[in-house]
Amino acid sequence: MFEALETGKNLTAEEFKDYREDLRPALLEAQFALAKRDYPVLIVMGGFDGAGKGAVVHRLNEWMDARLIETHALWMHSDEEESRPYYWRFWQRLPPRGRIGIMLGTWYQRATYRAMAGLLDDAGFELAMRRAVDFEQTLVADGALVIKLWLHVSRDMQRLQLSQEAPRQQQNPRVPGDPEAWWSTRGEPQHRGADPVSNLPADPEEWWRRYPQALEVSERLLRLTDSGEAPWHLVEANDRYYRDATAATLILNAMNGHEPGGTASTHPVKFLPEPGGQPTVLDHVDLSRHVPRDEYKLRLAVLQDRVQDLFWQAHRERRSLVAVFEGWDAAGKGSALRRLTAAVDPRLYKLVQFAAPTDEERAHHYLWRFWRQLQRDGRATLFDRSWYGRVLVERVEALVPESTWRRAYSEINDFEAQLVEHGCIVAKFWLHISKDEQLKRFKDREAKPHKQYKISKEDWRNRKKWDDYSLAVEDMVANTSTGKAPWHLVAGNDKKSARLEILELLCEHFEQCLGDRTRRLRDRA
Amino acid sequence: MFEALETGKNLTAEEFKDYREDLRPALLEAQFALAKRDYPVLIVMGGFDGAGKGAVVHRLNEWMDARLIETHALWMHSDEEESRPYYWRFWQRLPPRGRIGIMLGTWYQRATYRAMAGLLDDAGFELAMRRAVDFEQTLVADGALVIKLWLHVSRDMQRLQLSQEAPRQQQNPRVPGDPEAWWSTRGEPQHRGADPVSNLPADPEEWWRRYPQALEVSERLLRLTDSGEAPWHLVEANDRYYRDATAATLILNAMNGHEPGGTASTHPVKFLPEPGGQPTVLDHVDLSRHVPRDEYKLRLAVLQDRVQDLFWQAHRERRSLVAVFEGWDAAGKGSALRRLTAAVDPRLYKLVQFAAPTDEERAHHYLWRFWRQLQRDGRATLFDRSWYGRVLVERVEALVPESTWRRAYSEINDFEAQLVEHGCIVAKFWLHISKDEQLKRFKDREAKPHKQYKISKEDWRNRKKWDDYSLAVEDMVANTSTGKAPWHLVAGNDKKSARLEILELLCEHFEQCLGDRTRRLRDRA
Repeated sequence: MFEALETGKNLTAEEFKDYREDLRPALLEAQFALAKRDYPVLIVMGGFDGAGKGAVVHRLNEWMDARLIETHALWMHSDEEESRPYYWRFWQRLPPRGRIGIMLGTWYQRATYRAMAGLLDDAGFELAMRRAVDFEQTLVADGALVIKLWLHVSRDMQRLQLSQEAPRQQQNPRVPGDPEAWWSTRGEPQHRGADPVSNLPADPEEWWRRYPQALEVSERLLRLTDSGEAPWHLVEANDRYYRDATAATLILNAMNGHEPGGTASTHPVKFLPEPGGQPTVLDHVDLSRHVPRDEYKLRLAVLQDRVQDLFWQAHRERRSLVAVFEGWDAAGKGSALRRLTAAVDPRLYKLVQFAAPTDEERAHHYLWRFWRQLQRDGRATLFDRSWYGRVLVERVEALVPESTWRRAYSEINDFEAQLVEHGCIVAKFWLHISKDEQLKRFKDREAKPHKQYKISKEDWRNRKKWDDYSLAVEDMVANTSTGKAPWHLVAGNDKKSARLEILELLCEHFEQCLGDRTRRLRDRA
Repeated sequence: MFEALETGKNLTAEEFKDYREDLRPALLEAQFALAKRDYPVLIVMGGFDGAGKGAVVHRLNEWMDARLIETHALWMHSDEEESRPYYWRFWQRLPPRGRIGIMLGTWYQRATYRAMAGLLDDAGFELAMRRAVDFEQTLVADGALVIKLWLHVSRDMQRLQLSQEAPRQQQNPRVPGDPEAWWSTRGEPQHRGADPVSNLPADPEEWWRRYPQALEVSERLLRLTDSGEAPWHLVEANDRYYRDATAATLILNAMNGHEPGGTASTHPVKFLPEPGGQPTVLDHVDLSRHVPRDEYKLRLAVLQDRVQDLFWQAHRERRSLVAVFEGWDAAGKGSALRRLTAAVDPRLYKLVQFAAPTDEERAHHYLWRFWRQLQRDGRATLFDRSWYGRVLVERVEALVPESTWRRAYSEINDFEAQLVEHGCIVAKFWLHISKDEQLKRFKDREAKPHKQYKISKEDWRNRKKWDDYSLAVEDMVANTSTGKAPWHLVAGNDKKSARLEILELLCEHFEQCLGDRTRRLRDRA
């Protein structure tokens, strides 16, 4: 998920000032409108330490009427809290109707730190997350608007931020107790009801070491708690201007678009302040790769051998591959897929292609047509286009309302998590080309008679929406690329290079997963 | 929960015939209307073996157009299913839009049997249940109407039913494999992905022995999976006429009241076919109890001593009592509470009385005012009226829409489960008197000047709604009386007897819970 949150989005001081001009009065207006409504707004600030959650809250208090905002920082634990059920502390702090409450430190916190410290297993963590969602749904059912922001900083930026804060922190240690005990227990006398709660490390280097671990837990947190009623908004937070403007815009849009009663707003809410020319995750794909013909032939043969062996190994281990192929029109998906299938015994896979749904498919939930294609253990299912249609074409063409495609992220993550849990190997490929390269190929298709069947008016129509699709791809990667079911963005301007890259990535992913399994079996024996 | 489902509700053959006259055409009409709508109806049949789930499905197929109903009995497990993620089998069987699908055997089944067999711990069971709710919510978000019926039979009735079925079963054993292995594993070669799934016992005596265990797991199942989007409807199933008529009426009402889109219907849906004079759980309270004055004094003194000791013991063990007192107007709640508080050191409890909410309380979620009153570990909170107002007065007086009070059952169960999990001891008392006794007391209050402040027009108004309140109490007990947070129905016609009974029940509940804890501590040491 986080690769899409390290693209280098930023604003200049000038741009930020322009935004501020618009945002301040709009936020104040929304706040005064809220004062007359009969529901509260709960802003949940998520993200790592050093991501600037506190700074954003400062900014919000500066821009809005601070008398109508309650900010709760739950990083100190009182005896009174420990003596009551865990959620008591949060119930105490709920804002009344007509007001905004900001939560710095939330119902996610305890389980997250415990999971990072290895004190909570996967099932326990999932349970805590599902209970958190339940709590939010209870509030939403009562009319509350819950706005969840997740601020993401890169590893380096976190180190930088924390090292600037460190001197202050050491003078005022956040949590008393044994400094060695951070992320484990409070070092205080344990009594019933008191769960181990983290001490936070004062040392930025310790955070640096734990960063990958924190990423993994955070990814699961986001996947499990992104609900239709209270979705997460992911914010790239390396640049503070971009971070603050984005956070404020998201809050503004959510407040303006909210209809009390729990279901998603019918107003179209713009997702991000997309100042023209912000970099996206696709801009980080290196399209200059090129493979000469001779090298290509050689490497292709080797890779095809390797992939065939891996398909057989997966079959023996009764593991099932689920591979998804998406990409721009004319990106070369079909020819890349042929290089893959050419290598594999037809008994070991099924290739399914998706266009518009059939009548029968239309009569079911949109995931039904994909579930039914799943092959059994030991056989692969290759999806030429897939369930991602909902957040790509159906989003861009407005075939479904925004609430529907937005909800799909969590439905898709849940679907893929079930596959992974069952033992499937899930790999997803987005075949990327530049806009110019697409034009070249379109023209080539029109020019050559034997390629004309490949090009239609629809392709030209889609091309006009290139920017919308780019944004949809960005959001898709941000919301659905997970450690166990990652998106691979493949450079497609050079067709040969793309084919090799897909095979290579597939082999690596295969080997990692099959290896995983082997390791686990070995550990058990 | 189940005490309210063994009250002896029944229909005569004649009454049933009358119902059938109404139900058949109405069901057919609803079915044909559905055929033109763009959502499916999923009927989930829950309950023990021998509760008559199959018989109800037969009846539905007989009364409706069977060509438009798909019935899926998921008690045989195929190799194809085991080779795919668990929910694949359910996705395969989802009815298309415009159709009815009936599920005999559901996504609850595997975890339930595993929990009964001791193969799944509490957290694992809760997780499986929350995932089941997630699955249902995914369908509901797509427009599906999910109707969940839970058929309950008493222990004796189950034995009777199963012993009639047993000869057939033994000829056609349901699941091949080791008959000893039921409720544990299938006895088939285990491979990855294949989870132990129950064999069902052919021997009714085995079910008889396991009945209490099954009750306990079922209660947790119902508590965890009763959601606003897909609530459970509990059906007393000892009498087959009552069972079939009730099940069919519930389905009819749900279908007629459904608005696609997931939120509850705005049409008022009648809950049950309440043929005048069906017994309720309150009819089983023995109001003839009477305690003579001398015996009362003696026993009261003993009980007050005992209760004081127990409050101190709880304090030492840092356990917190949460006791709820509800009852009819003039049932003697106040005087019973005084007998309790007279016995206890004031430092050990807080008594909170609830009338109409304050402005500040009204500005929050309705549970907020109760959460904030919770005393810390080792101190008791006595609630004179409570969160049950939502499903009693607010329901009967229509102060909130039906969807709101119906959702409250699960919110309340969740709240109390959090209390229990934290270590609180939760006891709930309903003080019951007869309608005649209430009249006598009202008149007495009006007659005696020093009691006139106790009676108001509102009391007389409430009294007119006696039947509505009775039904609300019945539903409340059915939906919220759990093993760890039970409802105690106290006979109040004789005030002295009622006071003693409350103290006695409280002491017993206390001792059981503190004993529990003592045992646990002992076991650990």
